[in-house]
Amino acid sequence: MTYVWGRHPVFEALRAGRTVDRLVIAEGTRALGLLGEIIQTARERGVDVQFVDRRALDRLSDRANHQGIVAEVADFNYRTLDDLVAAGSSATVAPLVLVLDGLEDPQNLGTLIRSAEAVGATGVVIPVHRAVGVTPAVEKASAGAVEHLPIARVTNVVRSLVDLKQRGYWVIGLDPGGNQAYDQIRVDAPIALVVGAEGKGLGRLVRETCDALVRVPVRGRVGSLNAAVAGSIVLYDILRRRKSGA
Amino acid sequence: MTYVWGRHPVFEALRAGRTVDRLVIAEGTRALGLLGEIIQTARERGVDVQFVDRRALDRLSDRANHQGIVAEVADFNYRTLDDLVAAGSSATVAPLVLVLDGLEDPQNLGTLIRSAEAVGATGVVIPVHRAVGVTPAVEKASAGAVEHLPIARVTNVVRSLVDLKQRGYWVIGLDPGGNQAYDQIRVDAPIALVVGAEGKGLGRLVRETCDALVRVPVRGRVGSLNAAVAGSIVLYDILRRRKSGA
Repeated sequence: MTYVWGRHPVFEALRAGRTVDRLVIAEGTRALGLLGEIIQTARERGVDVQFVDRRALDRLSDRANHQGIVAEVADFNYRTLDDLVAAGSSATVAPLVLVLDGLEDPQNLGTLIRSAEAVGATGVVIPVHRAVGVTPAVEKASAGAVEHLPIARVTNVVRSLVDLKQRGYWVIGLDPGGNQAYDQIRVDAPIALVVGAEGKGLGRLVRETCDALVRVPVRGRVGSLNAAVAGSIVLYDILRRRKSGA
Repeated sequence: MTYVWGRHPVFEALRAGRTVDRLVIAEGTRALGLLGEIIQTARERGVDVQFVDRRALDRLSDRANHQGIVAEVADFNYRTLDDLVAAGSSATVAPLVLVLDGLEDPQNLGTLIRSAEAVGATGVVIPVHRAVGVTPAVEKASAGAVEHLPIARVTNVVRSLVDLKQRGYWVIGLDPGGNQAYDQIRVDAPIALVVGAEGKGLGRLVRETCDALVRVPVRGRVGSLNAAVAGSIVLYDILRRRKSGA
């Protein structure tokens, strides 16, 4: 069992059919809008709905921004790389897999998953080791998008990339030193886009495994973008160019 | 006086010539890489450098992720809208001003400022009321970009937009219900891009003041993007299209 908190994540967990064992709501919260919809859906499903002191929610969520609602849910259901590849093969659009090489910030991971879901990506690959998994904070930052997008946890990112290449994927690494601009890459093939860790970028072996390294140009003095923003810009440009047939 | 923490923000504050009164560093921190450069620069400038117990930094930064370094600095120097317009007029590229209508999350504000600096924007406009200002958390999330980009605080966003329109700016609001796709807008004129608050979007009067409302299309089930990501995608597409002459 684990928890999910915040209105959107709880709503999306219910909507996606995740097993919800208990819904805990802060006393005095007005059941309007999305919260009203959540309570109604939970009751229809026979979920136990409890109204408790707000401090109990602070404890359950470790003082996160829970917005007055916490759900006790089944553990997150990770998929395998094979699941993602199968989903990509059966889709009507060209597959697009986002591979995250050691992201440590839950906010960035959640934001990238939200963007990947928004562009209709096939799924997301994250490493088991030295990286954040799908925690409640990630679920919150994703606005519940984790509920609608297959996420595979793999023990070895390099091996997964080699696997994807053998299955016809074009593996593109996001790298400040990349020799191709992000809006010039080929987008007709199935794509695996690799985003590295905040501040560190791609690991050496990961970089060497990529078919191409692309950069998002930066004009200012700071010289870098937030990792989630950079990844999202490339995801959107792939969507834009696939649509326009460029 | 105020504080700035984290390696990049402190480095950028020094580099931008902001008045630094004192540099406080956690005992036992190794003065390598960027931190070494910071200490050297501070000493050359005659800044008082103190090595203290890490817990003192936790207190100064209210337990933020200070990375072992906190600087006591002069208050943030906000500019006026006139300053931004003047900077835009004297630049060799078409002006691009980012206007934030009531953003509340420091992480999102910092991330957007970082993106604006990265595309070479003219500056950023934020409201005085019901919105976050340039706090240390914003400075941290911006990786220090706030030090290199003029930021104006205004009492009335609508009046500022009217002002910008009168000076030849094309005012574009980012809105999920916008009737133009973000990659179709005209980019030759000076642009003011308006991004609304998380979850709420643009205020009614702000929306009515815009010359055009644009949307970033969303395919998934969650149906929305993080505000900082959506704004950054549009900023980058303006840069891309201005470069390509599209």
